[in-house]
Amino acid sequence: MVSDLEKRYLFTPGPTPVPPEVLAASAEPMVHHRGADFRDIYARTLSRLKDVYRTESDVLLFTASGTGAMESAVANLTEAGERVAVVSHGSFGERWVSICERYGLDVHAIRYEWGESPDPDEVGAAVRESGAGIVFCQQSDTSTGVVSDVRGIREAVGDVTLVVDAISSLGAVPLETDAWGIDVVISGSQKALMSPPGLAMASVPERVLAQAKPPRTFYFDWRANKKAQDVLDAAFTPAVSLIRSLDVALGLILDDGLEAAFERHVRLGRAARAGIKAMGLELFSPDNDGAAVVTAIRAPEGIDSDQLLAHLRDKHGVTLAPGQAHLKGKIFRIGHIGWFDVFDIASALAAVELSLTELGAEIERGVAVARAFEAFESPVTA
Amino acid sequence: MVSDLEKRYLFTPGPTPVPPEVLAASAEPMVHHRGADFRDIYARTLSRLKDVYRTESDVLLFTASGTGAMESAVANLTEAGERVAVVSHGSFGERWVSICERYGLDVHAIRYEWGESPDPDEVGAAVRESGAGIVFCQQSDTSTGVVSDVRGIREAVGDVTLVVDAISSLGAVPLETDAWGIDVVISGSQKALMSPPGLAMASVPERVLAQAKPPRTFYFDWRANKKAQDVLDAAFTPAVSLIRSLDVALGLILDDGLEAAFERHVRLGRAARAGIKAMGLELFSPDNDGAAVVTAIRAPEGIDSDQLLAHLRDKHGVTLAPGQAHLKGKIFRIGHIGWFDVFDIASALAAVELSLTELGAEIERGVAVARAFEAFESPVTA
Repeated sequence: MVSDLEKRYLFTPGPTPVPPEVLAASAEPMVHHRGADFRDIYARTLSRLKDVYRTESDVLLFTASGTGAMESAVANLTEAGERVAVVSHGSFGERWVSICERYGLDVHAIRYEWGESPDPDEVGAAVRESGAGIVFCQQSDTSTGVVSDVRGIREAVGDVTLVVDAISSLGAVPLETDAWGIDVVISGSQKALMSPPGLAMASVPERVLAQAKPPRTFYFDWRANKKAQDVLDAAFTPAVSLIRSLDVALGLILDDGLEAAFERHVRLGRAARAGIKAMGLELFSPDNDGAAVVTAIRAPEGIDSDQLLAHLRDKHGVTLAPGQAHLKGKIFRIGHIGWFDVFDIASALAAVELSLTELGAEIERGVAVARAFEAFESPVTA
Repeated sequence: MVSDLEKRYLFTPGPTPVPPEVLAASAEPMVHHRGADFRDIYARTLSRLKDVYRTESDVLLFTASGTGAMESAVANLTEAGERVAVVSHGSFGERWVSICERYGLDVHAIRYEWGESPDPDEVGAAVRESGAGIVFCQQSDTSTGVVSDVRGIREAVGDVTLVVDAISSLGAVPLETDAWGIDVVISGSQKALMSPPGLAMASVPERVLAQAKPPRTFYFDWRANKKAQDVLDAAFTPAVSLIRSLDVALGLILDDGLEAAFERHVRLGRAARAGIKAMGLELFSPDNDGAAVVTAIRAPEGIDSDQLLAHLRDKHGVTLAPGQAHLKGKIFRIGHIGWFDVFDIASALAAVELSLTELGAEIERGVAVARAFEAFESPVTA
């Protein structure tokens, strides 16, 4: 273990690093969630969420992890035995499958290899063939780094309800909830929204609420939560201090502008990939500008990626993310969503380079950081 | 509205005031929930929770409001159509009823007037007659200030599963989870545990888990959450910063000793009641040492209690809690759980006295605070 004095570096795709002013907001004196002091913060946070979502609809805010908000969609939109479709290309696609199965649904899983990007036309055909009226998918599956074309999927699936998990992508890559006609978008506080974990969201337009089924949940009941939010109340005591933090974080993001955030994430992804390739390592996530959330990398021959991560953490205080499920030990992941800049990418690359060398791997040394800076500087065209 | 510079006083029974060092812990740099830095905090928090619960069993920790943990008990222990009993003597008893109905249970509600204390023998007889195998109740119903005799209820109900909501009472009044044989105890971070809201808990012994039904929830699945906690993991990204705060708060409570906390709460309740009576106001909550969580007070003739609360808040920066449901406008409540001392009670009483005078109520002036201090000093015998 590194000593308490040594610096820690958090380069994971959730929780992500949280700016000091966002953390400080969590430490402000406690206020009552039904008092005037909090209502101002709450109203502003809910309004800012709509701006980040690019929606005119309500964004319901839950005190929960993102999975809770995912479950809310299944528990409010479906009834037992109903046929639904899930587009799965990673660990979180399988989470949709698990939640749907828990709710007794007839799940038609449209599965891709982990790391593959779903083809919208194929998805559209599969959904039509399945007869499903609701489709669950990910915009970003954090387990692989794939950012899928949810706009294309929306166009291809036709007149069904589309529920998109954008937990790790909202605020990092473009998502036009209203303009693209996405019915429900799920997100969480601890990814590109650069806030502490503990808050989850679901955008729920009136047209979707109108087709909701009798809710099979109490805590995540959309109608009850919306009814409270409509009068700036919360159905259940919310995480007041986390909402204070989220308010500050959303303000920082919106002041800088969402377009700037999207461009920065493209550049950060480029920098990470360029550096990794310069070391002679192989990318697991796609090598294109879309992969702006997390960069997944195959461990080099003879190195277990979990061993690399333990070395990085215990010897250098650097935390990266491991491979999940069958990718455990095989890949590792550098997150770059939210409060990240190119110096973070440089540090992550330098730490990987140093650690792999210390572990005896044969890699190209001394070029990754320079390549990363070059890639970061190259212009982004919209 | 008071100006930003004027001091705010939070005298509500949840969220409760949070000590500065507990708030500051929430603002520490973000760490990964699966890293070594967090695992130490997590292990200590889970262990401290067991100490506060006085149980050897696992206390499952959820990122949610207390209602989420209440729902977890219903969703894991019951199947649709099953007969259950609910002891209801306030707003939160009705919440048990609502959750159980949402899950399609055959609910036998054993109802008392709000403000009345359930009689254990009566409850025992009603449960036996109902044929229910599971009983849900409150130790403290925050809506009325009644702290019920859950030890007596445990003895009276016989061989059924007893689920106790101790959200506002755990850490304030004695609750011996193991010694009294309470099967499941629900609690939350934002009451006597003097932490920010956003964490909820349920103690789940192996014997109870063995009789769990197929879970009708994904996020609150006891087995999945326990499986993760068993290896110091969390099933879903937990509220890292809130757990840091809870860890510090539990440390403060346990260092001082639970017995000291129980005695302090008795004294605080005495002080509040003595002051209220000295003003000539009428108590709504029972006038005994058991009512150590919150003091509920009838608004005097001609005064709407919501008007009093608005005056207290807008003119003096003092937040008290309103009456709920049919008690709205009729009662108001002074919370005294967690980080409260006698000077808080004195401030609350002085503010009520001042505000009622300003609103033209006929009350006894100038004696409440002195009576409160006297009552606080009188010895507590175990």
